[in-house]
Amino acid sequence: MAEAREITGLAVVTEVMAPEQVDLVARYADMLQVGARSMQNYNLLHAVGESQKPVLLKRGLSASINELLMAGEYILSHGNEKVVLCERGIRTFETATRNTTDINAIPVLKELTHLPVILDPSHSTGHWQYVTAIARAAIAAGADGLMVEVHIDPAEALSDGAQSLKPERFAELVAQVKAITEAIGRRLVSKEINLPVQD
Amino acid sequence: MAEAREITGLAVVTEVMAPEQVDLVARYADMLQVGARSMQNYNLLHAVGESQKPVLLKRGLSASINELLMAGEYILSHGNEKVVLCERGIRTFETATRNTTDINAIPVLKELTHLPVILDPSHSTGHWQYVTAIARAAIAAGADGLMVEVHIDPAEALSDGAQSLKPERFAELVAQVKAITEAIGRRLVSKEINLPVQD
Amino acid sequence: MAEAREITGLAVVTEVMAPEQVDLVARYADMLQVGARSMQNYNLLHAVGESQKPVLLKRGLSASINELLMAGEYILSHGNEKVVLCERGIRTFETATRNTTDINAIPVLKELTHLPVILDPSHSTGHWQYVTAIARAAIAAGADGLMVEVHIDPAEALSDGAQSLKPERFAELVAQVKAITEAIGRRLVSKEINLPVQD
Amino acid sequence: MAEAREITGLAVVTEVMAPEQVDLVARYADMLQVGARSMQNYNLLHAVGESQKPVLLKRGLSASINELLMAGEYILSHGNEKVVLCERGIRTFETATRNTTDINAIPVLKELTHLPVILDPSHSTGHWQYVTAIARAAIAAGADGLMVEVHIDPAEALSDGAQSLKPERFAELVAQVKAITEAIGRRLVSKEINLPVQD
Repeated sequence: MAEAREITGLAVVTEVMAPEQVDLVARYADMLQVGARSMQNYNLLHAVGESQKPVLLKRGLSASINELLMAGEYILSHGNEKVVLCERGIRTFETATRNTTDINAIPVLKELTHLPVILDPSHSTGHWQYVTAIARAAIAAGADGLMVEVHIDPAEALSDGAQSLKPERFAELVAQVKAITEAIGRRLVSKEINLPVQD
Repeated sequence: MAEAREITGLAVVTEVMAPEQVDLVARYADMLQVGARSMQNYNLLHAVGESQKPVLLKRGLSASINELLMAGEYILSHGNEKVVLCERGIRTFETATRNTTDINAIPVLKELTHLPVILDPSHSTGHWQYVTAIARAAIAAGADGLMVEVHIDPAEALSDGAQSLKPERFAELVAQVKAITEAIGRRLVSKEINLPVQD
Repeated sequence: MAEAREITGLAVVTEVMAPEQVDLVARYADMLQVGARSMQNYNLLHAVGESQKPVLLKRGLSASINELLMAGEYILSHGNEKVVLCERGIRTFETATRNTTDINAIPVLKELTHLPVILDPSHSTGHWQYVTAIARAAIAAGADGLMVEVHIDPAEALSDGAQSLKPERFAELVAQVKAITEAIGRRLVSKEINLPVQD
Repeated sequence: MAEAREITGLAVVTEVMAPEQVDLVARYADMLQVGARSMQNYNLLHAVGESQKPVLLKRGLSASINELLMAGEYILSHGNEKVVLCERGIRTFETATRNTTDINAIPVLKELTHLPVILDPSHSTGHWQYVTAIARAAIAAGADGLMVEVHIDPAEALSDGAQSLKPERFAELVAQVKAITEAIGRRLVSKEINLPVQD
């Protein structure tokens, strides 16, 4: 992981699934992710709350906006104020997409909290064809960032291949998101990334 | 209604709730609306399908994207090809907003049909504070239009006041939506509207 | 229909889908059914409210218990007090069954209204294998009746074959429901039915 | 806990929330409970799978029946075959009750697995008034057991008071459930319980 960061210049976000993993992961990752299935694992929230690393807190599949906020507050109450909230789709009756992107959650959360709010269009749609459109929508709705799955060869991905973008499509997404960002008077902040070349 | 159109220059969309209303309404309105609660009223779909007026078909609260498409096909199959589909929010467990805007429905519908697709952020959020953000998101996601509730004095509205915009906020919405439209390489088409002056 | 009633001795319930059908159907049927998709068709509710025939009002797929009660009140307010409410399953994320039987609705409705409450386990499950178990559950929860789909040859049914019981399985259902009825201190009321013999 | 068991003669079920708690709890409890929020905590499922104690696995709020089965299989695959599945209500749009009891899950699970299936009507309704009716329904639908919250003084309960039964109402529930059990040809198995007397 440390090697990957050095080669690419990318910051690393890694999921922690149990309290006892927090210390080890915090040593190597730049940010700790609490996954959707762990959003109400209070032992884990407590542990990342005592860490100094930024935390990416993903909304549970059937967690209300209010419950997401309270889980965030729980981390804050243990001393860690660097919390980012992430909408990643909720479970509804609709089956045309893997989840339903709750785009309303973006303006609602922006009104209720000062914490940054991002959206993960890969999980919230489940199909790469819809990822770029929903990424544009998220930024237009006021999201502070995106979390997008990219894979050199999605067909060979160990998991989530159907929702992963190829690098060239991801480049298109970035260009389109940049245009939206400017249209609403904000600015896209990104660091230079050295994508590894495959031989 | 005819008078309102003449004074303002606005086109008029009116809801029809029963087959026998179609002829009368079609004489005066520019477009017939089939409401969310009537989306699977096949007698009504049949009747508007035999009309020559454009039809605005709103998605039912718990209708799947596929069922919306089939209701649209049913109108087409009776001879009327001028059908516009409208996402207006679905019913989920989330109670922070009146409905959940299914923003995924925009790119999914745009892939599956050539029919125009619009979004109604007033009903899909239920709160005027969120309407403009979701209007921007809809256009960014690829929607072909919007349907927005506006009222001179929302507090006095007979219905849906909480989700209605005052005219000055609606003007802001139009300006922001215009910027998004251009950012994605499309163009906002609108006719000049003469808003009535209140004495 | 009148002939079917005479031969079998069964009472006939028929769905009405538009206000102008009410008079004709009321002449031949013993009870008017308002289907799930029409539960909030207020023109239709008004029309059956002015009829003297008993009305079977089915809950909409995504109608809340409160909305079902209000639709029932609307019929009552137009003068017809013979209204029976029917839980027939709601739409949720679960796909193992066609709908989710909201069994909670039975005791909730029994507390909130004096109207009879029945359950339709055929639609609320969508699979004949589960119909008898849910029929038993409904009666145990306090339902005043059941509505069950039966077909001589489900595989050949024009619609809803997957959820229809063969007559011999229906006889089992009746026997089991009778035992539950007695266990909770109620009594199964049924009239003799002459099932037609197929040659 | 050991003392409570000795005085009352009751078996003790205790929730484990993290893998490292399993050994300690297994020493004193008769059964380990995996709560709804932990249903997909695979580290925890792994840990209880290596224990010899029976496991009570509660369905997640938005877990499908299939996901509940797979979580159960995961425990079995680590060597522990004493798994009991528990339906405890799912999250839907209905707000009249705390959750929606998915009564369909009982016959569906009984068809798909040989594992015992129980229902928790306290959580699945959230209101003590509905607990007894849903307990009867669960047994009528084929459930192998119930999990019911009881409190000497619900108004003073630290949590879940609204859904807790007073002891005398619980006695009524047991009597009614016994009658249903016999009506469907099964037998209620219970051990003698010495309820503590309050001075």
